Amino acid sequence: MTGHDKKKLCDIGLIGLGVMGSNFALNIADHGFSVAGYNRKEEKIRQLSEMKREHHKIETTRDIGSLCQMVRTPRAIVLLVPAGPPVDAVIESLVPHLQAGDLIIDSGNSHFTDTDRRTQSLAEKGLLFMGMGISGGESGARHGPSLMPGGPEQGYERVRPILEAAAAHVEAAPCVAYLGSGSAGHYVKMVHNGIEYGLMQLISETYDLMKRGLGLAPDELHAVYARWNQDELNSYLLEITADIFLQKDDKTGGSLVDLILDEAKQKGTGEWTVREALGLQVPTVTIDAAVMMRDMSTYKKQREKAGRMFKGPNPRFEGGKDEILQQIKNALYAAMIVTYAQGLALLAKASDTYHYNLNVETVARIWRGGCIIRAALLEAIRSAYKSNPDLDNLLFDGHLGQAVATRQADLRGVVRTGAALGLPMPGLMTALAYFDALRSSRLPDNLIMAQRDYFGAHTYERVDEAGIFHTQWGK
Amino acid sequence: MTGHDKKKLCDIGLIGLGVMGSNFALNIADHGFSVAGYNRKEEKIRQLSEMKREHHKIETTRDIGSLCQMVRTPRAIVLLVPAGPPVDAVIESLVPHLQAGDLIIDSGNSHFTDTDRRTQSLAEKGLLFMGMGISGGESGARHGPSLMPGGPEQGYERVRPILEAAAAHVEAAPCVAYLGSGSAGHYVKMVHNGIEYGLMQLISETYDLMKRGLGLAPDELHAVYARWNQDELNSYLLEITADIFLQKDDKTGGSLVDLILDEAKQKGTGEWTVREALGLQVPTVTIDAAVMMRDMSTYKKQREKAGRMFKGPNPRFEGGKDEILQQIKNALYAAMIVTYAQGLALLAKASDTYHYNLNVETVARIWRGGCIIRAALLEAIRSAYKSNPDLDNLLFDGHLGQAVATRQADLRGVVRTGAALGLPMPGLMTALAYFDALRSSRLPDNLIMAQRDYFGAHTYERVDEAGIFHTQWGK
Repeated sequence: MTGHDKKKLCDIGLIGLGVMGSNFALNIADHGFSVAGYNRKEEKIRQLSEMKREHHKIETTRDIGSLCQMVRTPRAIVLLVPAGPPVDAVIESLVPHLQAGDLIIDSGNSHFTDTDRRTQSLAEKGLLFMGMGISGGESGARHGPSLMPGGPEQGYERVRPILEAAAAHVEAAPCVAYLGSGSAGHYVKMVHNGIEYGLMQLISETYDLMKRGLGLAPDELHAVYARWNQDELNSYLLEITADIFLQKDDKTGGSLVDLILDEAKQKGTGEWTVREALGLQVPTVTIDAAVMMRDMSTYKKQREKAGRMFKGPNPRFEGGKDEILQQIKNALYAAMIVTYAQGLALLAKASDTYHYNLNVETVARIWRGGCIIRAALLEAIRSAYKSNPDLDNLLFDGHLGQAVATRQADLRGVVRTGAALGLPMPGLMTALAYFDALRSSRLPDNLIMAQRDYFGAHTYERVDEAGIFHTQWGK
Repeated sequence: MTGHDKKKLCDIGLIGLGVMGSNFALNIADHGFSVAGYNRKEEKIRQLSEMKREHHKIETTRDIGSLCQMVRTPRAIVLLVPAGPPVDAVIESLVPHLQAGDLIIDSGNSHFTDTDRRTQSLAEKGLLFMGMGISGGESGARHGPSLMPGGPEQGYERVRPILEAAAAHVEAAPCVAYLGSGSAGHYVKMVHNGIEYGLMQLISETYDLMKRGLGLAPDELHAVYARWNQDELNSYLLEITADIFLQKDDKTGGSLVDLILDEAKQKGTGEWTVREALGLQVPTVTIDAAVMMRDMSTYKKQREKAGRMFKGPNPRFEGGKDEILQQIKNALYAAMIVTYAQGLALLAKASDTYHYNLNVETVARIWRGGCIIRAALLEAIRSAYKSNPDLDNLLFDGHLGQAVATRQADLRGVVRTGAALGLPMPGLMTALAYFDALRSSRLPDNLIMAQRDYFGAHTYERVDEAGIFHTQWGK
């Protein structure tokens, strides 16, 4: 399957030649596979033509029927178009040109329920449909993303050589694997993004403490994150965070990050993750705090008003800088592990609920490279699930559980410092609360059950006897 | 409108004679209005017959057609049946017996989108439909609940005398008022319940700290909550909490609450509130933490395992008991205000989004009595919105904002103590984080925007210049 057989028909079709699509096309072509690319807009075709000068494995068209004639059968056609109605529109225009057994791969950030719906409706037409998460941004698409495919396994086998070649590689293993049936791929990508929200919130809180609390300048912040990136915290997000503090503003010559508005946008995948966690009753408090703090950040005018109205403590930390920096580093690592634990617990519950038959070790393996949350930590997470595929919670892994336990004093210290200095730390605080709640063989929810039974006759259970009970309280 | 006019036809119909329905029927009849009650089950009819011996204003039937003949026209018929499909089933069986202009009032905990759908479909048949939240449990239904009606105002006017008579009264004013169009009533009830989840979580955290941290016995806990209930914390939830610690177990003679299983159930309205907050981008972190901690509580086996696996700090507090108790009291009050602020901000945003035209002062007024979250604090909240109907956030009220500001040191102290002792405090912690985030005219979300632009070319805005910018980071 090198692209030269079958009368020069292309190995794969690709619809949507925006930033992600055109870079992914070049990536695939780099590995010897021929690509037929389609875009409605002349401009996108032209842009890709300029980019692809170095090789001849990409052909383009603005006619969707022609695209289908350019790809060898049974066809495999990747969509890289915006999630939502555009995906349905493209599918509708594509289907009349396909034949039974052809495969459509949606690589956008589609909601997994849309993927299930499309799988069903295309199956009725004899077509295969896969949802495939892709992470790594523009650079990942070009040089090796993490790919999270789910759906019919026969469809995956058809494109496996192409995906394995195009994916990022870690220790010679591609960051792609068949994840499970139906919408498994898009679900895994959604949770990937939820974890990403959590990790970014945690990093931003450490930044806030070091900037407002310790008064570190951008070059000092660069040095701290760059140093942290050298051992256990090693990760793409820390790497780019360190980079960001080096970036100068062309206009003023100052640090660019200081000139960026502090209102965070979002595209919804974090919110989806929290909705899923609520529905499946898996507590993902840190991911939720991250999503809600992005919302909070958009209330800029109210924050400015409240900032004038409510004097808080002096935010300046007065203790030893070296000690607190070490404490922040350890707290961040512990809270990151807790955030992964929350996200992976959701994945495990979803796998049961939706019958994905996910292997969490495989998920951790393909997240080690290419994607935004790639990190040295994922090797430890992979090992945890390799040793025990049925791990109830990541924290029950001996190594990672102890990594949090031995850093709990640091996490407690940082939370206490944040509370004292008046710096908001909902991410670190909820990570600590999650750890302490999980450690609580007895939580105070017996009182909540008593209250519910008191005011609403909602009944309760007992610790010493099976059954459902109701009491006439206060009589 | 006393029930004696129009050939002895009843003033109102009531479908569903369970605990809530039969008590509400008795309540209405107590005030001189005649009620026609319907239930499918003979047993429910018989139970109500036994309860209603004292007066003759209630007639019952097991035939829905007869029910409609018993109620004077234009009819008003209240549904008190479980939310979801039962409401649709009852409406379907009821409609053939109604005539144009009749009014159906759904008083269950229906999701507001169901209420909008039913409003629309019944309007097409010339029928009026109202969604009305009802809070106060069995006792409220019998002796005066808080009623939260929304929908067509002409429908409300028809039943206003009945609802005003049956509702709880505070300072001679009924805890009912027309709230707004469409699903306004059910939306307000949903947010009421979301706030209730938050307050119950906060109370449970103070209980946990006083039990595990201070080692208080049930009678001491009773005394503390009873004392707190005497001034600014005065509320139904504190009152019943104090009561709960007095309740003995018939079997063992010990404190009943200690024998209740610490796995909290929920019926979904808290979760709906959080989903709405996510959708409307209103941060309700404390309400969310409350919902998610109920989920966490259900992982009892994992908690027991983690309790054995992870040793934490000694949970016993070593400082002065009187000081920490005063601190906990103040922290609870501050965090409760913050929780109301989150819920009411959601209401205000929903009112804009869904065109409810809500008056938050009115909402606070009718919550002062009858409902689960009734509290002295609601009088202050009412005043806040009376002085300024367009208050962006409850904390911008001079009185309540200062109430939090002057107690922030206590809230910080309690959060620091919880973190040090290893007691989970996600409610108190997120309330503090909310306050500190709101106070932060500059949040670290500039870093999040830089990261998003770095890895995904998602662009950013600047503080010093309008426009949308993108940088080639790290080049």
